[in-house]
Amino acid sequence: MAEAHDAVEVITAKRDHSELSDSQIDWVLDAYTRGVVADEQMAALAMAILLNGMNRREISRWTNAMIDSGERMDFSSLSRPTADKHSTGGVGDKSTLPLVPLVAACGVAVPQLSGRGLGHTGGTLDKLESIPGWRADLTNQEMLSQLEGIGAVICAAGTGLAPADKKLYALRDVTGTVEAIPLIASSIMSKKIAEGTGALVLDVKVGSGAFMKDVDSARQLAETMVSLGTDAGVRTVALLTDMSTPLGLTAGNALEVQESVEVLAGGGPADVVELTIALAREMLQAAGVTDVDPVDKLMDGSAMDAWKQMIRAQDGDPDAELPTSRESTVLHASRSGVLTRLDAMAVGLASWRLGAGRARKEDPVQAGAGVRMHAKPGDTVTEGQPLLTLHTDDSERFARALSSLEGGIEIQDVGTPYDPTPLVIDRVCAD
Amino acid sequence: MAEAHDAVEVITAKRDHSELSDSQIDWVLDAYTRGVVADEQMAALAMAILLNGMNRREISRWTNAMIDSGERMDFSSLSRPTADKHSTGGVGDKSTLPLVPLVAACGVAVPQLSGRGLGHTGGTLDKLESIPGWRADLTNQEMLSQLEGIGAVICAAGTGLAPADKKLYALRDVTGTVEAIPLIASSIMSKKIAEGTGALVLDVKVGSGAFMKDVDSARQLAETMVSLGTDAGVRTVALLTDMSTPLGLTAGNALEVQESVEVLAGGGPADVVELTIALAREMLQAAGVTDVDPVDKLMDGSAMDAWKQMIRAQDGDPDAELPTSRESTVLHASRSGVLTRLDAMAVGLASWRLGAGRARKEDPVQAGAGVRMHAKPGDTVTEGQPLLTLHTDDSERFARALSSLEGGIEIQDVGTPYDPTPLVIDRVCAD
Repeated sequence: MAEAHDAVEVITAKRDHSELSDSQIDWVLDAYTRGVVADEQMAALAMAILLNGMNRREISRWTNAMIDSGERMDFSSLSRPTADKHSTGGVGDKSTLPLVPLVAACGVAVPQLSGRGLGHTGGTLDKLESIPGWRADLTNQEMLSQLEGIGAVICAAGTGLAPADKKLYALRDVTGTVEAIPLIASSIMSKKIAEGTGALVLDVKVGSGAFMKDVDSARQLAETMVSLGTDAGVRTVALLTDMSTPLGLTAGNALEVQESVEVLAGGGPADVVELTIALAREMLQAAGVTDVDPVDKLMDGSAMDAWKQMIRAQDGDPDAELPTSRESTVLHASRSGVLTRLDAMAVGLASWRLGAGRARKEDPVQAGAGVRMHAKPGDTVTEGQPLLTLHTDDSERFARALSSLEGGIEIQDVGTPYDPTPLVIDRVCAD
Repeated sequence: MAEAHDAVEVITAKRDHSELSDSQIDWVLDAYTRGVVADEQMAALAMAILLNGMNRREISRWTNAMIDSGERMDFSSLSRPTADKHSTGGVGDKSTLPLVPLVAACGVAVPQLSGRGLGHTGGTLDKLESIPGWRADLTNQEMLSQLEGIGAVICAAGTGLAPADKKLYALRDVTGTVEAIPLIASSIMSKKIAEGTGALVLDVKVGSGAFMKDVDSARQLAETMVSLGTDAGVRTVALLTDMSTPLGLTAGNALEVQESVEVLAGGGPADVVELTIALAREMLQAAGVTDVDPVDKLMDGSAMDAWKQMIRAQDGDPDAELPTSRESTVLHASRSGVLTRLDAMAVGLASWRLGAGRARKEDPVQAGAGVRMHAKPGDTVTEGQPLLTLHTDDSERFARALSSLEGGIEIQDVGTPYDPTPLVIDRVCAD
């Protein structure tokens, strides 16, 4: 396979602003996976990549080398086309939950391999695990037969996909090298390409609650990922969507499942419905299905049917009552006026501190913890009305959660101009 | 001591072009020495420092934190002033050997803690170990009493000085982060300041055989080190000296000892004598001794007396015959003309490949291996005359040594303008 290089040669090449050759990239990722390149060497290389960048060819080769470090899945035996989506992570973003059964109800199979949450953004598996009995771990065979039968799967990614990425991600987390667009893009795309989906829609979040704080860096990440997908033969499109304020009216595990079920029942907050429909249309179009309107499938109950089948297939009870928190407290509006700001990061941190998220990979999460919002930016509020309800099992968590909300809420005089950011900011597709 | 920080905070600060605070620097070096900051975290930080730099305050604090990681020596009980010198490393640079006894003979004690060679530049201890019986390892007490009695010591640095530097140097060596001026300067100066010398003269080599290939980067390194020494209360001055061609007529261990003894006997190649005298004058001036001319001490035999005492004090026999190599071969001039180029790196690599140097820290060196030069740039040569003699114990080493000389030697028509670089290019002192 790859010709022999040595780690210092590869590191100094990138350090000195050279392009890495295909052979250098193949060698360094293979050698890192095998433990021949040490963590300290990969850390120095990651920092050099963060500061000096990689071009499209290098990122593409890097992604392929990560894919080649593990197994690839193959859905070509399925009788229907496949499409998947990936979100870069936001606060209150439960759209995966209604989206997967909705797209399945439209005739496209969705093999959604998800992760757990870390930090202030929630994890899809954490949310679904608040449903009594539901299990995240499926064998490849269970996954394939569920995709064939129901068309909808949300489960944990197996350990066989892109092991180089898993090792590198853990390293970047402790070495200040997470925020490198080439490494973020290749990390996401190596897993999605290895997963074998035919089409992919990326939801790249922009704003205080997102990884990308500004539109320019979000667009750069989106363009990089769309290029990588396209180069790998996956029909890929990205939406840049707003994450300056939380999506919907809930942040937390069971709270978000409940809101998702409302959407599947034809109700739910307007922004969650809008994003779910927009992503579903992109997935259907990318999968080549143009004769079905997802709005119909939401209204006629077939998306809800697919949801219940999907939950039951993974041993969950879709009709069971969801867990609720033992304690709650209400934050009231301090004055009357227009709510002009409800900061996504502030709400995300509050929800995390209430117990909905975890600080370390091995921590448990509370199913019932989180934040319910009673108003969204643009709404008129009256002094003393409930703005937020905070939920947790441990009342000593309220103080730190409330402190994270300080400065995150603004109410201004009625008549103050309020210019809402559109939910879908832009669309990035292959040139 | 230092307030608590965390590694990712310090790494991302430097990554994002911030100045590191005193407290961040103290914490990260202490935590790294204790193993709380991991190698991969320090590697990422070193790469960020290499690419984004450190200012004078940061480098000074970094140096002090490395000194504080270990013990400091104290020569204040000595009856004479102390001065030391450090060379950034070159080919054929044996000047430490005659310099230390010469300066001692002038009444200034020289506590020269040296290292072994790695790569194409020779190590002072390797050279002295070619003297039968001589030992590099002294206790602090032996060193102090030898300094008091003879005034001259060349020995191995103990493990107690700047342990953070030792750990960091080994890490930089494998992570492509050697070439960072802040890290080079603080590495050299932390050891020299901890050693406790009162005055310090730096010989910063410039040219193909040196670490710094151009005068600008050599001057930047020299200025950084002079600032660090001055800030620490050490009277520090630096000479920038030419290393485009080897110093003297020999490169190798016993070969260089022999040439050093010639200098101490009042002979030896002109360039070695010039550099030795120039460095001695700087050391004496920095130590406040202005009434002694080192040329006198070379000519009247007192430098040679100090040499013999110094060698004997460390169990060496200064009158013993030096080892010679088992094999030799001669490289002849390919044409008649003026030798316009004898490249330092080419000769250094040849000597290294002949067995005078080591590829790994644990490798042995050959005492007799190396290169003897029969002409220097500027000399007129005749076709077929000996240019170089190569020495080794293993004749199979000749081929690779000769190949490293290819392109390193140029002979041009007599009358071709030849403009020699001055040996001492510049002098850098505190402003």
